[in-house]
Amino acid sequence: MATVKLLDYEDAPAEAKAVYDEIKASRGVEDVNNFWKAMANNPSALRTFWERMKAVMGKGELDPLTKELIYVAVSIANNCEYCIHSHTAAARSRGLSEAQYNEFLEVVGLAVNGNALVNAMKVPVDEQFKV
Amino acid sequence: MATVKLLDYEDAPAEAKAVYDEIKASRGVEDVNNFWKAMANNPSALRTFWERMKAVMGKGELDPLTKELIYVAVSIANNCEYCIHSHTAAARSRGLSEAQYNEFLEVVGLAVNGNALVNAMKVPVDEQFKV
Amino acid sequence: MATVKLLDYEDAPAEAKAVYDEIKASRGVEDVNNFWKAMANNPSALRTFWERMKAVMGKGELDPLTKELIYVAVSIANNCEYCIHSHTAAARSRGLSEAQYNEFLEVVGLAVNGNALVNAMKVPVDEQFKV
Amino acid sequence: MATVKLLDYEDAPAEAKAVYDEIKASRGVEDVNNFWKAMANNPSALRTFWERMKAVMGKGELDPLTKELIYVAVSIANNCEYCIHSHTAAARSRGLSEAQYNEFLEVVGLAVNGNALVNAMKVPVDEQFKV
Amino acid sequence: MATVKLLDYEDAPAEAKAVYDEIKASRGVEDVNNFWKAMANNPSALRTFWERMKAVMGKGELDPLTKELIYVAVSIANNCEYCIHSHTAAARSRGLSEAQYNEFLEVVGLAVNGNALVNAMKVPVDEQFKV
Amino acid sequence: MATVKLLDYEDAPAEAKAVYDEIKASRGVEDVNNFWKAMANNPSALRTFWERMKAVMGKGELDPLTKELIYVAVSIANNCEYCIHSHTAAARSRGLSEAQYNEFLEVVGLAVNGNALVNAMKVPVDEQFKV
Repeated sequence: MATVKLLDYEDAPAEAKAVYDEIKASRGVEDVNNFWKAMANNPSALRTFWERMKAVMGKGELDPLTKELIYVAVSIANNCEYCIHSHTAAARSRGLSEAQYNEFLEVVGLAVNGNALVNAMKVPVDEQFKV
Repeated sequence: MATVKLLDYEDAPAEAKAVYDEIKASRGVEDVNNFWKAMANNPSALRTFWERMKAVMGKGELDPLTKELIYVAVSIANNCEYCIHSHTAAARSRGLSEAQYNEFLEVVGLAVNGNALVNAMKVPVDEQFKV
Repeated sequence: MATVKLLDYEDAPAEAKAVYDEIKASRGVEDVNNFWKAMANNPSALRTFWERMKAVMGKGELDPLTKELIYVAVSIANNCEYCIHSHTAAARSRGLSEAQYNEFLEVVGLAVNGNALVNAMKVPVDEQFKV
Repeated sequence: MATVKLLDYEDAPAEAKAVYDEIKASRGVEDVNNFWKAMANNPSALRTFWERMKAVMGKGELDPLTKELIYVAVSIANNCEYCIHSHTAAARSRGLSEAQYNEFLEVVGLAVNGNALVNAMKVPVDEQFKV
Repeated sequence: MATVKLLDYEDAPAEAKAVYDEIKASRGVEDVNNFWKAMANNPSALRTFWERMKAVMGKGELDPLTKELIYVAVSIANNCEYCIHSHTAAARSRGLSEAQYNEFLEVVGLAVNGNALVNAMKVPVDEQFKV
Repeated sequence: MATVKLLDYEDAPAEAKAVYDEIKASRGVEDVNNFWKAMANNPSALRTFWERMKAVMGKGELDPLTKELIYVAVSIANNCEYCIHSHTAAARSRGLSEAQYNEFLEVVGLAVNGNALVNAMKVPVDEQFKV
């Protein structure tokens, strides 16, 4: 259970309904995910997050699949179950293959392993990185 | 200071020297970074990590720049200072532009923000992600 | 499932029963939460944690609602599901309104976002903070 | 060293200078902190973060000191050194006394301790929190 | 649900079946755990992780029970539910008593508490640790 | 710099001086570490933490070296630089050999790697762990 009520379309305030409509149209889906139904308890925060997600995750200097992988990597490190599920699914809908996913997992595993070794031994930053 | 001695080439055991030589040749550098000098206290672990890094971070189904960005994203979430410096530098040497770096930071910021909101409200995973 | 047995009143050792009685009287509830039933496997640790919680979370220089919000903020960052649920509920029982909760979530979201940007860019601490 | 150049006023682009001016006027300081000088490499992100910080951290349903303490609590859990320094200083400038700071540290310590015990024993969420 | 299919023996590729057989023989069990069934989507990663786990977690300079406790401690800090369950069970199968488990939890609780205080107050490292 | 003043013996309140004396006598050292000098700003918290550390980290069902390794493992996962330095040193003073330290690092590295894979794939807990 969430700490807030998940607001279905009919129960959501008008300002939230407008965002739901945009999400449904933008993604071609019949209903919005639970994340948006939780955010709708604060309609202005819902609006802000949706605008920001559109602006940040769309195609720019980095492609949308790369952005989704970065999002999933962060979510794994923070162990956000919902985020891992929704953004791994988003990465797949952006074309992530199983072979790419396997490589992604290997990079994440190497990174956390390297992080732990470096943090454990308190390796000092090399001078050349300090410029 | 590190919790272990950083082993310069002349102080490193033969098995570690061999890895140093490979790293220097592979990267065209005159000396290896502090991470490797710390790892050299356990030469077989040094060998294993180097082989693994070569295998994982090279070009495969994902390109090397994407892999470096995933590595940095994880390192930020774990706040590994050394790793952030060395892999941000690696990403730049792989061609990361400032505009791409700015977008990267925006994705990371959005991800941690989304993670926190979802974790705070304990949003339940949607049924469609459970298949 | 927990990694330990949750001890109901009738199964708990006498030292734990005494703590259960205090919690029930202090909070006006008919049964203690699962956390205490798990802690009861180590009755002296149960006693210590209960005494500490009473001393720390009660009214002092900071008011109890502020303390609960700090507790929840930490629990979100550590993604402790149980703690988020129980202390968000405690904050509400201390008078947290939905409008306050919305603001709380905005502060937490801003903080994690700021943390990630600063950690990513390794911003050096300003001199004026070093005195 | 940061991964980006810290932009002093004279080196900052016009859009960033305008934000610097607002921060200096709003806070009555002669120069902005390093965080803003790092953010200035992405002037629109600088503008967005500043607007958001003003809107979120000011007086609302929660008072500014409470908000600063929540911000510091999150920063401790994420071990963001810069953020801990700057927002502990901000809390003090908002009136945090040493006695309040001591209580704050006790709440944070209790929270992380409780989080670890609960996560370790995987205590299941009580039914009453699920409504 | 996992983000990947859990591969039962009959559905697993030959390379994964061979690892399953080794795990079952080594542990005297009739089926492998879900972790291995998830890893089997990348048979070479499955092979590598199994070889590494055998090499690292067996008796060496540290005894297997100590190693399991270190593994659980890390898993608690990362709040990996699956890992906490499987390695707490492994520690018990290695002889962990309830009294030892209670002490283990007290050490973990003290450590996270100490970590938070030190991170909060940014205590500088003593000179004698820097040699 | 710390967020609080580090109190040398001559500046510490009497209640803190008494704890300093106990620490110096117990450890056979001429001065206490910075951690205690920071804690001394809250003398009762200093007293409590010292009593707890003595009770928890001494010989019990687990030996002191094992306890120090658990403490360091948690500190690495939380990346508490001070704690890593002081407790790695404490482990060495308890007899930790370099060969044991190397194994310790391998266990920690395996654990974080396993944690990340499991969190990434959201592997469901096996039924046999749920009893």
